[in-house]
Amino acid sequence: MRDVAIIGIGQIPVGEHWESSLRMLAADAATAALKDAGVKSVDALYVGNAYGGTFSSQMHLGALLADYVGMNNIEAYTLEAADASGAAALRAGYLAVASGAVERVMVLGVEKATDRLGPARVEARNASLDADYEAAHGATITALAALLMRRYMHEYGLDLSAFEGFSINAHANGAKNEYAMFRNLIKPGRFAQAPMIADPVSLFDSAPDADGAAAIILTSADRAADMVPQPVQIAASAAATDTLALQDREDLLYLKAAHLSTDKAYAQAGIRPQDVNLFELHDAYTILSALTLEATSFAERGQGWQLAKDNQIGLTNKLPISTFGGLKARGNPAGASGIYQAVEACLQLRGMAGVNQVPNARIALIQNLGGLGSTAITHVLRVN
Amino acid sequence: MRDVAIIGIGQIPVGEHWESSLRMLAADAATAALKDAGVKSVDALYVGNAYGGTFSSQMHLGALLADYVGMNNIEAYTLEAADASGAAALRAGYLAVASGAVERVMVLGVEKATDRLGPARVEARNASLDADYEAAHGATITALAALLMRRYMHEYGLDLSAFEGFSINAHANGAKNEYAMFRNLIKPGRFAQAPMIADPVSLFDSAPDADGAAAIILTSADRAADMVPQPVQIAASAAATDTLALQDREDLLYLKAAHLSTDKAYAQAGIRPQDVNLFELHDAYTILSALTLEATSFAERGQGWQLAKDNQIGLTNKLPISTFGGLKARGNPAGASGIYQAVEACLQLRGMAGVNQVPNARIALIQNLGGLGSTAITHVLRVN
Repeated sequence: MRDVAIIGIGQIPVGEHWESSLRMLAADAATAALKDAGVKSVDALYVGNAYGGTFSSQMHLGALLADYVGMNNIEAYTLEAADASGAAALRAGYLAVASGAVERVMVLGVEKATDRLGPARVEARNASLDADYEAAHGATITALAALLMRRYMHEYGLDLSAFEGFSINAHANGAKNEYAMFRNLIKPGRFAQAPMIADPVSLFDSAPDADGAAAIILTSADRAADMVPQPVQIAASAAATDTLALQDREDLLYLKAAHLSTDKAYAQAGIRPQDVNLFELHDAYTILSALTLEATSFAERGQGWQLAKDNQIGLTNKLPISTFGGLKARGNPAGASGIYQAVEACLQLRGMAGVNQVPNARIALIQNLGGLGSTAITHVLRVN
Repeated sequence: MRDVAIIGIGQIPVGEHWESSLRMLAADAATAALKDAGVKSVDALYVGNAYGGTFSSQMHLGALLADYVGMNNIEAYTLEAADASGAAALRAGYLAVASGAVERVMVLGVEKATDRLGPARVEARNASLDADYEAAHGATITALAALLMRRYMHEYGLDLSAFEGFSINAHANGAKNEYAMFRNLIKPGRFAQAPMIADPVSLFDSAPDADGAAAIILTSADRAADMVPQPVQIAASAAATDTLALQDREDLLYLKAAHLSTDKAYAQAGIRPQDVNLFELHDAYTILSALTLEATSFAERGQGWQLAKDNQIGLTNKLPISTFGGLKARGNPAGASGIYQAVEACLQLRGMAGVNQVPNARIALIQNLGGLGSTAITHVLRVN
């Protein structure tokens, strides 16, 4: 099995791109990644996309985008695991290069959410829930996140303020990221006044749907060393699943897939949680941030929120998270979010994160979730 | 890179399963494959599915199906490349095992077409075309296949009868396959009387949408030898793409992706076309069969139809194709078709094809197309 490294990264600003189509967004990110890697083409393109078929009536993105970005005829197809589609594509790319069968892979995450608005978008997104046992009964992912959050508050005797640190941190970092959708700060006291979306999930607890595209280019670590000055090693890649329907979980407040995939990743990379310099986690909801920190061994059960409360998650603190704003402030272009995480982690590890730089970043953990932890795909990125 | 082998196969009858949901179809095929391999679980599940999000409002099938078939928590996600989704999943499974990162993979193709009827299904299927330059203008895949067929007839001075041999062969083989959707023979003279769907594509030129599920289990060739009496080697795996929109092709009548992926597969397996004992090709339309035989070096340009006309494609002839009925008679459950091809090829190579047996079958070529050759994924299966 060959070691794999990232030799190029590219991203476009996350937001509402009313004047661009899905393929245009994808091409801009792909072009940026090719330029960054100093190459003109790749041998395979793995697309991370969740909702192209429903948001944009456009599937079969492998063939479409390979051609549109000027790499007609290469191997190409799409990976889908709801909002973890980006990381699924990254894992497929990692395995392809690791196997030795493919030399150079582009992993391209893209989503065009603004092709559908209002109820049509909610309905499309609901296909990532259990269609028969959740969506059919009127549940949405935000409503289900609200059940999780309410249960967490009940079990541990918390009020809404337990979660505000996550959003304040995300917006503080997003405000300095030119690719972020939301660049405003959340002022002290404003979190409590945010309008409710699905009680207790407020506007400030949840990440926005968005348009976006991000790309990375992988090759074997041996070749990478000769190609670019700062290749980033993929030290671990692991995936796990949990039940799709929340009601089927033995323990609602335990993200088992996140735990399993992280444990595998720690073992593969040969690291412990305390070795991690920064963590790009899947903060689609503040409750997911709290539960994720517990599932990944950074906090005891019921204590994940405390890391935010104690101000341990900022860029210069014990465990920097969402260092470019996370899904919350950078925005959540579903199938692209996992690749944005990888791009951001690479910027940190290369020391190119500018005012968002985490000092001495050498090891980054990135984790992309599908649904409320039904899929969890975890990677460890590292520089020497 | 490890050699990879198939240790288990499972399929359900293709057809209209009005009383079963997508997950039920998938579970039946998965259970059959586990039983055939003599194992209780696998380490990863790669789902081949194209239209779950639109036909059944159900995506995120990795997590859903892993749990539903009793393998909760394993790695799982979906591969999509339109009707080549099944082969994309097979290739992902092959690469995962070849890399050494995953020991045992289930590749599960599933489609539930009857959850959408009439125009809704056509609209859903159109997402596999170019949404902006084909579907938006009223094209459907059958209408585009008709353009190809008309052009072929014009270029080579042929009439409709040039294509009938493909359908007669498919139905002759499908009639003896208990898993086939259509088990009727096409009588001499009836092909010419078939109702037109999109002139010149008639009912007998095109494969039916269908419900279906098929599964195979992969592991390393070393382990396979100890697990089952008749492991089937994956001697080659290759993928290529062509433009999504037909109008963008330099040469309408040349399936470039099929050609490229087949050439790679021949080279990887170290075989020549004449070494192939049977070919499960993507006969969604008779014109695709003709063009595929040309792209894969079994016929000269403009001569693909001649193989059918000369009766060289039957079970005991020079190049048996569609040995269990192909997409035409077995039916085309889009994302599952590529896995049905693999299952059928395994039955042939194991000598378990019963009355459909190709004598002395040792090397099988299988090729799954997305759209009209926009994606082509080719595998060579072999027994010693």
